[in-house]
Amino acid sequence: MAKITKRSEDYSQWYLDIVTRAEMADYAPVRGCMVIRPWGYAIWERMQRALDDMFKATGHQNAYFPLLIPQSFLEKEAEHVKGFAPECATVTRIGQEPLEEPLVLRPTSETIIWAMYKKWIQSWRDLPLLYNQWANVIRWEMRTRLFLRTTEFLWQEGHTAHATADEAVEEALRILAIYRTFAEDWMALPVLTGRKTDAEKFAGAETTYAIEGVMQDGKALQAGTSHYLGQNFAKAFDVQFQNRDGQLEYVYATSWGVSTRLVGALVMTHSDDRGLVLPPKLAPIQAVIVPILKADADNAAILTAAHALAESFADRVAVKVDDRDNVSPGWKFNEWELKGVPVRIELGPKDLEQGQVVLARRDTGEKTPTPQGQAIARVEAILPEMQQALFAAAKERLNANCRNVDTYDDFKGVIEADGGFVFAPWCGHPECEARVSEETKATIRCLPDEPEACSSCMVCGKGPATRVPFAKGY
Amino acid sequence: MAKITKRSEDYSQWYLDIVTRAEMADYAPVRGCMVIRPWGYAIWERMQRALDDMFKATGHQNAYFPLLIPQSFLEKEAEHVKGFAPECATVTRIGQEPLEEPLVLRPTSETIIWAMYKKWIQSWRDLPLLYNQWANVIRWEMRTRLFLRTTEFLWQEGHTAHATADEAVEEALRILAIYRTFAEDWMALPVLTGRKTDAEKFAGAETTYAIEGVMQDGKALQAGTSHYLGQNFAKAFDVQFQNRDGQLEYVYATSWGVSTRLVGALVMTHSDDRGLVLPPKLAPIQAVIVPILKADADNAAILTAAHALAESFADRVAVKVDDRDNVSPGWKFNEWELKGVPVRIELGPKDLEQGQVVLARRDTGEKTPTPQGQAIARVEAILPEMQQALFAAAKERLNANCRNVDTYDDFKGVIEADGGFVFAPWCGHPECEARVSEETKATIRCLPDEPEACSSCMVCGKGPATRVPFAKGY
Repeated sequence: MAKITKRSEDYSQWYLDIVTRAEMADYAPVRGCMVIRPWGYAIWERMQRALDDMFKATGHQNAYFPLLIPQSFLEKEAEHVKGFAPECATVTRIGQEPLEEPLVLRPTSETIIWAMYKKWIQSWRDLPLLYNQWANVIRWEMRTRLFLRTTEFLWQEGHTAHATADEAVEEALRILAIYRTFAEDWMALPVLTGRKTDAEKFAGAETTYAIEGVMQDGKALQAGTSHYLGQNFAKAFDVQFQNRDGQLEYVYATSWGVSTRLVGALVMTHSDDRGLVLPPKLAPIQAVIVPILKADADNAAILTAAHALAESFADRVAVKVDDRDNVSPGWKFNEWELKGVPVRIELGPKDLEQGQVVLARRDTGEKTPTPQGQAIARVEAILPEMQQALFAAAKERLNANCRNVDTYDDFKGVIEADGGFVFAPWCGHPECEARVSEETKATIRCLPDEPEACSSCMVCGKGPATRVPFAKGY
Repeated sequence: MAKITKRSEDYSQWYLDIVTRAEMADYAPVRGCMVIRPWGYAIWERMQRALDDMFKATGHQNAYFPLLIPQSFLEKEAEHVKGFAPECATVTRIGQEPLEEPLVLRPTSETIIWAMYKKWIQSWRDLPLLYNQWANVIRWEMRTRLFLRTTEFLWQEGHTAHATADEAVEEALRILAIYRTFAEDWMALPVLTGRKTDAEKFAGAETTYAIEGVMQDGKALQAGTSHYLGQNFAKAFDVQFQNRDGQLEYVYATSWGVSTRLVGALVMTHSDDRGLVLPPKLAPIQAVIVPILKADADNAAILTAAHALAESFADRVAVKVDDRDNVSPGWKFNEWELKGVPVRIELGPKDLEQGQVVLARRDTGEKTPTPQGQAIARVEAILPEMQQALFAAAKERLNANCRNVDTYDDFKGVIEADGGFVFAPWCGHPECEARVSEETKATIRCLPDEPEACSSCMVCGKGPATRVPFAKGY
């Protein structure tokens, strides 16, 4: 098996090597599109299940809205169309027959959903509507990269309707908290959270909240967004309801989403030069049993023991026996390391004699001989330990990647030399934000809830200012 | 709540009334597209879960292939393009920029998947590939009807690759058996199974197998198909592998799918003039607790008891307390009947005094006072009883809808007067099949494995012939 590129040599190629060689995804024939292969998809399925459970536990219901949106719908919300129209794939004919009105493939579904909400919402009794959908969306992006930015991607998009602004803001923040919990407890990815600046917010939103992680190369990655949309879409689609006082009022809205980009973030957060490292809670296979088979030997006893061990794991740990007879044990070790399986269980003829197995942990590389009867208990102890250890390491990296500077000169130096989140004083004016972005490619990632007050903006020198995190991002 | 149309008055309107009033689906702004509302989607999710478990238990893995297919790909398999090209929605521009090569929205994914299989398959060691995807597809159909035939629909499509024809045929039949099990054990929908005639098979298949049910109006409904594709797509995309003898050979294939059409079939199979009737195994809510609240009374004790009862059901039965205070108990009864919830649990002040609840069963309408302590056990007994009863009733209807005739005159009379599956002698010639279809709208639904031999075809009078089921279908 060819080695993957080292992080220190070429971080970007290292990432792509892992994604393609671990068979998580491959390039599709259409520019910017990818195929999600079974290993990548199985990780996405586990993410879906965890998120879906949290959405349902907070009262959300799944639905499905059409892929095809009349072009005129997109034009009803002025900011929204500016943001999305240029990247919309557009259907203009069926077979060879031209369509009367072109249809765009959803880049996001606010417009089609609010057209339907107009049919369903009349009174405060119809509210709130707490809907989510799991769907594919299409955005024709200039630069694409497997999982992180692709022309088509899979996501969930929540779209809720409320009777008051307060309720809608509360919903947007509830979802932000769910995203944070998911990132931290499942992906072992610590994040910053906060509001986006007006320049960075969603096209059509009043407020965009985001979770932001930092990758091993010091670049930030936006991992999920939750938008308070105010009455913008209700006004664009004329969705009014009779409130408790009998008056007509426009409905308040949120929307929020995370996508298959999270799979890319997962790869970039924990992996090493031997391949993918998966947090156990999201690993499709948590432990792989590799019987050490010998050519021309009677391997029956070892195979029987391996499968018996697997049986004993059923319903407790997701386990697989790799009993292929056409590749060597060493080849298998490399492959499962590349694929990020948390624990490898080796079982050779000597182990069998001694009634033991050897447990190898993917993150630390630690190998521990363990009595067969204790294997399941030990693996059940290792998995949460490893989940915690990955989070702790990522948290340490996040902390190390948060740096304060006060002057624009220092800022430029640190952004270039160290990357990460650079917390610097900003006066709040879009001009200063735009200048930083043009000159350094760094953007403000989110506005902290309680930012430190500073005397003056690092760009224009005027006050008051607050300290906000800038970073170069994916 | 307005009543739904009766089956006896207008079967087709009865169906649409249930789908829309039970809030399973609604019409989207684009012709032929639908919105799947939470109640309909929750049923689909249960179907997905059951099917996905069966696919995985037989070694299949999920993946995701792109929506967008270069138009030229579709043209590589001659039969396939003839079948699908006229109904393909085609993307010709991004924003206002024309695309160099038009992209079609997948009507089915054989072509894009076999283009990828060419990259992944070199040797017999790479086989079999047993992949499935859950996805949306687009087919521009002339006549659409919610769930049963829509421009966009959701489905799963399996695409497998094998080293031998025998293995591929075995796979196609394995999936046919899974579809039959799912239809019968989950949907309580008894089906006929068999091969399609050449006129009715999938565009690009060697053999199409299907499951066919009969609806309450006597029309047949194709509920799932499994195709043996031979080497047709391997040849079109030049996918060869080195076999165990070291020779190059084209790969053998299957594909198979079921769709959101199944939700429509479910509605049509079991429902009655009061609304939807759901088989308990697919019901998003299996039992609804309706506390009988009185205006201006202290309802606290009843509400507390209702929620305590629901707690006791947790993890055993999917239960919901309908504690809304703005609609009457009678209104709630009607609504949950319309939505097909299998068991209603009424809990009023008198019941509370007597320590009982009243259980009402959706299919029979039977109402049984039951001590509160026995409610969970009783509901757990009713659910499988009802599942069985629905299947038995549907099976009886299927049997009553299978009729033998021997002459074409009798055939025309029975097809017109009674509908259902009419088993009649056919010589096997497409001309006779086509004549029946033109003159009566009835088609051959599937060829039984061991058909009865007959002396002569009912159409041309020539022999030999076999008895095959004709029906008008959805």
